[in-house]
Order: sequence, then structure tokens, then C-alpha cells
Amino acid sequence: MKNRENIPKATIERLPLYYRCLDKMDTFEDIDVVSSKDLGGKLDIPSTQVRKDLSYYGEFGRRGVGYNVNELKKSVGKILGVDRMWPAILVGAGNLGHALVNYKSFSMMGFEIAYVLDNDPAKIGNMINGKKVQDIKNIDKIVAETDIKLGVIAVPTDAAQVVADEMIDSGIKAIWNFAPTRLLVPPEIEVKNEDLAVGIVSLIYHLSWQEEMETKGE
Amino acid sequence: MKNRENIPKATIERLPLYYRCLDKMDTFEDIDVVSSKDLGGKLDIPSTQVRKDLSYYGEFGRRGVGYNVNELKKSVGKILGVDRMWPAILVGAGNLGHALVNYKSFSMMGFEIAYVLDNDPAKIGNMINGKKVQDIKNIDKIVAETDIKLGVIAVPTDAAQVVADEMIDSGIKAIWNFAPTRLLVPPEIEVKNEDLAVGIVSLIYHLSWQEEMETKGE
Repeated sequence: MKNRENIPKATIERLPLYYRCLDKMDTFEDIDVVSSKDLGGKLDIPSTQVRKDLSYYGEFGRRGVGYNVNELKKSVGKILGVDRMWPAILVGAGNLGHALVNYKSFSMMGFEIAYVLDNDPAKIGNMINGKKVQDIKNIDKIVAETDIKLGVIAVPTDAAQVVADEMIDSGIKAIWNFAPTRLLVPPEIEVKNEDLAVGIVSLIYHLSWQEEMETKGE
Repeated sequence: MKNRENIPKATIERLPLYYRCLDKMDTFEDIDVVSSKDLGGKLDIPSTQVRKDLSYYGEFGRRGVGYNVNELKKSVGKILGVDRMWPAILVGAGNLGHALVNYKSFSMMGFEIAYVLDNDPAKIGNMINGKKVQDIKNIDKIVAETDIKLGVIAVPTDAAQVVADEMIDSGIKAIWNFAPTRLLVPPEIEVKNEDLAVGIVSLIYHLSWQEEMETKGE
């Protein structure tokens, strides 16, 4: 395997897509062997790119035969770290927090929201999907006792930085941020900004282009 | 401008990032001119890539001077179609639906949830952020009257395909799907799957790698 630091970010971002697709083939479609062409075809990724991405991590599959779906799924899962569970604390028991706690397909990615915290007395003590909302004041204790490293921010934008600071003070190492704002964090803390507004733009781009074509065609 | 069909998907996906960044500089930071190096630096994108991405759409900026922030923002906004509002219908008035209706930063991307629909009698008639939840049965009438082209699916996985079919029957042309499942749609319908579980994987990958390094270091 190459030094992980030299692997392109785009490759790393495609790995979960491969993993999802392989898991589906393995679990639901009873497919034993897949070519890079077929795997790429399902994801709109050229087969040359599929082979290049995987080659960063070792030699998988056999030329002219393809990849064993179950084996490749396990290998990619191990690379991604999703072969075991990663518990997380979530701060923000509003609608988004609820939606995330109830989201069905996290567990197959090795992700589990183990604790839900909030600072609103009206929310503390409520149950969300079998989990009791705890006071944010307990964050240090919870993180120290559980050794959880992953935090999820689902609070309003203006509270996000304060929550991030509290998480980092408590010992959280990686933050998944759903508030549409950039967080200031020390360099050793990894942040993934989940900016929902970016997702819609490719659809608007498409519709806008379609309308332009229709106008020209008239 | 080149034929839009030949522009790489990755370029299209970076445009909203440029737009967001330029908007922030223009609106909050009073920056008049920016180089491709500085713009790329803020987004972890090489300056050569920034210049290449923008070159697909025309000539912007001046060599050795940089881009006029306000002008480039307007140009990229126009390319993306976010220079005007795109109303959408949302189906699914659960927690995720609530979170999306309340999400603050959609409007700057030209996106607005104008109607909320559900099939649950307990939810129909409720107000979410000033919008009354309507019966899904009204979808044909609403889409026909408003000429809305954009639909958002925020229902549980097992209901997503039925809702997609209803949307397409009613005249919706582009679907933003938050249910973690692939939708079967005719080729002329554009779908953007917002698979939240993919977002967490880069953090898990990072943590997993960090732990491996620490174990080796011990």
C-alpha cells in the first residue's frame, strides 16, 4: 500500500461509493464477481479510474476475471475503517438531530450515534429513538468515559463554533458539521462540513440549462 | 463557452464551492479582487484547477491581476442558475422535512421549498415555518398551477420510489432524494441522491488511519 497521505482526496471520496455498491451486490443481488467496467458503470466512474483508485491500496482482482465481490467489499471496508463500529456524540436535538438519529443507513458505514446532547432544558430528558437527550454539560464526562472520538454538530449556525470548541476541549478528534458555517479548529482536528445547500446546485444547474435549451428551441 | 455536455462533472460540482466562497468574500469580507491561488487556497483546490474549471465557461479575470470578486460571483451564479429562485415541492413532513424547510442557507443557492406535502392525516394541516402541510393528493394540481420542476424526497426509504413516481407523473423534472435508496426514473429525469452516510466515511477513514499510526508508534 502507498503512503496514505499521498492518496488523492477524490480517490478517498470514491471509496464509500464502491463500498456501498459492493455491499448491495453482495447482500441483495447475489453477485460473486464484478469487472471494473461493471462496477464503474453503476457509479458513472470510468473503469480505468476504478482500477487506479483500488491500486493505491494493493492488488485486488484478477486481470480478465474481475473482482470477487465479497472479498473486495471486505477489503474496501477495512481500508475505510467501517469494518467496526464508530460511536459518536451528537449535539443538537432539534429536527435535524432527530432525523440523523433516526437515519437508517448509518450503521452499515460503521457509524452510530451513541449519545445525544443539547443545552435546551425543554429537550433534555426527551427520548429520541431509545436515546435520552443529555445535558451538554456532561460532554466532558461522556467523552472521557467512552473514549468517543467523533462528534456531530446539528445546532443552529450561530451556536456551531461554541459547540465545536466544547467538543474539542472534551477530547473529540473528528467533527461532522451540519451547520452551514466554517469552523475554526486546530490543525489536528478533522472536520467534514456537510453543506446541504451545495447538493441542490447540480439540479438547479441542470434545470437552468434545460430551460435555456428549450427557449432556444422555440 | 464550450458545449455544456462536455464539461466534467467534477468541474460542475466545484462551481457551487467557488460561488459560496466568492459570495462570502463579496458580502462579508469586502474583498474586491482575488487570485486563482487565493480562491483555490480557501477550498483546497489547486490554482491550475480553478483556472481550468472557469475556462470552460469563458474568460474571467486578468492575468497577473486576478478576478473581480463581485463580477465573478455574478458570472458563476448565472452559470449555476442560482441568480434566480427555484421553488420546490417537498414530500415528507417528518424530522428531515422540518429540518430542510428550516435550513437557513438554501435561499442564497436560489432554492426555496415552496410547498410541503405528506400523506399522514396527523401531519396534514400542520404549519412548518409558515407553510401548511398539504395532502400529497394535491401534488398534480400544485405542480400544474405553479410550474414547479423541482421535488425533494424526505420520506422513509420504502416510500421513496412511490413518491418519485407521483412526482414524475405530476410533471416534476428534477428530484433531490434524501432517502438512502436508488430511484428508478426515466432518463430525462435528473436525480441527485443525497446519501448522508457517505459523508461520515471520510472522517472514519481519517480516525481509523490515525489509530493505526498511534498503535504502530506505541
